[in-house]
Amino acid sequence: MFEAAELGQKLTKVQYEAELPKLRAALLQAHFALKDTPVPVIVIISGADGAGKGEMVHRLNEWLDPRGVDTHAFWQSSDEERERPRYWRFWRVLPARGRVGILFGSWYSEPIIRRVYGEIKSSKLDTELDRIACFEKMLADDGAVIVKLWFHLSKKAQRRQLKELESNPKTHWRVLPMDWQHFKLYDKFTEASERAIRRTDTGHAPWHLIEAADRRYRELTAGKILLQAIEDRLQQLRRNPSPAPAANPAVASRPSRRASTTILDHVDLTQQLSDKEYAKQLEKYQGRLSRLAWAAWEKKVASVALFEGWDAAGKGSAIRRVTEAMDPRLYRIVPIAAPTDEERARHYLWRFWRHLPRAGTTTIFDRSWYGRVLVERVERFAREDEWRRAFLEINEFEEQLVEGGIVVSKFWIHIGKDEQLRRFKQREEIAFKRYKITDEDWRNRKQWDAYKAAINDMVAHTSTEFAPWTLVAGNDKKFARVQILRTLCRHLEAAL
Amino acid sequence: MFEAAELGQKLTKVQYEAELPKLRAALLQAHFALKDTPVPVIVIISGADGAGKGEMVHRLNEWLDPRGVDTHAFWQSSDEERERPRYWRFWRVLPARGRVGILFGSWYSEPIIRRVYGEIKSSKLDTELDRIACFEKMLADDGAVIVKLWFHLSKKAQRRQLKELESNPKTHWRVLPMDWQHFKLYDKFTEASERAIRRTDTGHAPWHLIEAADRRYRELTAGKILLQAIEDRLQQLRRNPSPAPAANPAVASRPSRRASTTILDHVDLTQQLSDKEYAKQLEKYQGRLSRLAWAAWEKKVASVALFEGWDAAGKGSAIRRVTEAMDPRLYRIVPIAAPTDEERARHYLWRFWRHLPRAGTTTIFDRSWYGRVLVERVERFAREDEWRRAFLEINEFEEQLVEGGIVVSKFWIHIGKDEQLRRFKQREEIAFKRYKITDEDWRNRKQWDAYKAAINDMVAHTSTEFAPWTLVAGNDKKFARVQILRTLCRHLEAAL
Repeated sequence: MFEAAELGQKLTKVQYEAELPKLRAALLQAHFALKDTPVPVIVIISGADGAGKGEMVHRLNEWLDPRGVDTHAFWQSSDEERERPRYWRFWRVLPARGRVGILFGSWYSEPIIRRVYGEIKSSKLDTELDRIACFEKMLADDGAVIVKLWFHLSKKAQRRQLKELESNPKTHWRVLPMDWQHFKLYDKFTEASERAIRRTDTGHAPWHLIEAADRRYRELTAGKILLQAIEDRLQQLRRNPSPAPAANPAVASRPSRRASTTILDHVDLTQQLSDKEYAKQLEKYQGRLSRLAWAAWEKKVASVALFEGWDAAGKGSAIRRVTEAMDPRLYRIVPIAAPTDEERARHYLWRFWRHLPRAGTTTIFDRSWYGRVLVERVERFAREDEWRRAFLEINEFEEQLVEGGIVVSKFWIHIGKDEQLRRFKQREEIAFKRYKITDEDWRNRKQWDAYKAAINDMVAHTSTEFAPWTLVAGNDKKFARVQILRTLCRHLEAAL
Repeated sequence: MFEAAELGQKLTKVQYEAELPKLRAALLQAHFALKDTPVPVIVIISGADGAGKGEMVHRLNEWLDPRGVDTHAFWQSSDEERERPRYWRFWRVLPARGRVGILFGSWYSEPIIRRVYGEIKSSKLDTELDRIACFEKMLADDGAVIVKLWFHLSKKAQRRQLKELESNPKTHWRVLPMDWQHFKLYDKFTEASERAIRRTDTGHAPWHLIEAADRRYRELTAGKILLQAIEDRLQQLRRNPSPAPAANPAVASRPSRRASTTILDHVDLTQQLSDKEYAKQLEKYQGRLSRLAWAAWEKKVASVALFEGWDAAGKGSAIRRVTEAMDPRLYRIVPIAAPTDEERARHYLWRFWRHLPRAGTTTIFDRSWYGRVLVERVERFAREDEWRRAFLEINEFEEQLVEGGIVVSKFWIHIGKDEQLRRFKQREEIAFKRYKITDEDWRNRKQWDAYKAAINDMVAHTSTEFAPWTLVAGNDKKFARVQILRTLCRHLEAAL
């Protein structure tokens, strides 16, 4: 495959300088036009050592409007990064819509290097590459333009390049001891890279192989590729301002499957606890949870617990019974309301990634990413293709959490429609609870059946082996709270 | 002082339950009213071990609307925190306007504990307390309501409390081995705490001593204090929607001091370099900078370099000459444009704290916090009291950077008014530079004298011993670039 990038391509200074001004003007124009679009551009700079990747980063920063560029180099990870699922460090630097993110090093570096050093088998490399393909598809579906540049050097050219850099006092520092180590592994590196490129070369995130021996050629080529990618998208937006294919009306109008509507109906809402039994069980499980939370801290096991449920199902009070048992240093509650503009400017999962717990601690989400397939679906804030694809995206997300060692617990607190009405009315009578009932709650209530269908779909699609839903029988709050505490204890015990 | 909190205050269950519903309703109402104001509320929970601080955190979370509360417990710091100035971890969790931030542990914990353990002298404690007073004043000036709660236990009550907690299996976990260790140091703890409280008990951030032996008394008292503080501010806002005293017109209309207008005039704008000399010097200092940047990485010395200057002064190209010499893994450029809403919702320095470099790396700010005393002053985005107080705030900020081991370099790139005009016209002629000239630039140019006065004031007030300004002679770009590179090298050499 790499033969195509060993043709001896080069440009004279005259050719370069003849083309450059045009390219720069066009790039800037495209960059400015990009600002007002919902499109983030992700540029991945990868390839051989000594291929001028660092210089390329400088060049792109020079050619684009620096105010619209975020450059990130991935290198040593911090403990905050190491204590979270691996992709956390990538999520944290994804560019906002309308901006260009230049990534020097990326999600490709680690799998390739580990394969080169024989730390992982090729089957494991493939698994990683599939994950990458999945991740990039998700970003592309969300509207991102992904430009992946691979700067290639033949073995000969790489040796020459490293020697040249090293002998020049001005560029000497660019050559790290690691680079020569890598050079010895040139063939293995080529093999792993080829595999990576082949397996992740997709329509929505294509690879561009660039012959890198000549500076002028590689820089101009890279600039043109980036320009083309942005211009293509801008043109596409002008033709069709909606960034994704329209929902398929045939699918949209399909009634919810009868079968799935029975999932919630199977929750036995008559289950209850007496006051006495409640007091006993509450003490038992809160005590157990408190000990488990400390044990998790010691063993550096993180947890995510998310709470969803009908309005007035008792989410808040259930969460309090959980947190009462935990030292405030060990958990954080993240209430999910309207996103901030920094959140809105990114993939909808970004705001959840940013709050993932560090090792040994717990993040409690009061509402969660499931809003995508619940309120956003029912209220049509998300298009059908968006919420449909969210099932897969969420499963992939949760799988990464679990792989990262996080204990995931998901609660849907279910109540009957009559019980909800009773609680709405009761709340309106108590001064410090009245605020909890808003017009929105009444509006939502009218959509009961639409929500029910959405909940059923959600549970059917996202109750996975690694992150199953717990449907909580919430008509009796006491029963519900104990069920939640017991489940959390069970999940932690299994993990510790 | 603490005797006032050893009176044996307590409440019966009947008293408690008679008052609680009223308090909760009022708290919620106040919390809701707060949402639409520009006021962040910071609640600090401190005091003796075993005084129910953790429970208090739970209670406040229960009483307030959880969607408007951020709770943070400070405990072990991460490496990302340790590698930055000490207050970074506090800045990172400051609540946004309209929200309540509950801090369990705070900037008080470390100085007090270190004093108790004899790690610092009382004079050092005082220095720390002065810093705290300064920090809190800054937040208060910015509109924050700061509620500092100190939960006090007599020595006897503390022993009883710890024993009680420990003997109950349900609360056993709340007692850490550390707590008994602290208990042995009760008298020292009391002494250091008294000192801390006395020295930081200010009108804008008063301490509230709460007798903590009785749960019902302490919780109700704390709730009432918080309520009062929020209500007072709400009432004040209703009377005077502007959160700070209006600018003094006598001061506002005062012409800039003649004397200070000479600072910029002293920059010798005729300085220049020949092409040959430039090439030689550029290579020399870029080479030196590249080696120094790696040395700084090895020694874990961080740097902040900020660039300010007239429009068209050549900031961007000067920054590129700097970054060309550095490995992309070692620096980040942060362009400062309009703040995001997350940034707008906090003190104006917050957005700069969030980008401070980790140990061994450099953050380059393309424009900076000095916008407060430049564009915000000239365009009247900031009131006079705001930009005036910014001088002190900025000095305090930069002092913390320097104390945190960061090498701070500040560049004002100066050019003459004629030279600016020449460059504006030139830029309009080159396609890929045209975007750099906007109507705003022409507008700014009309304000030349107002900016000049602001710049002079800025340099006069913020060129400190620990973070002096470098005024760069920018009429000759070559000279300016070399001056900047040379200064950066000198600063790094002094630090390494």
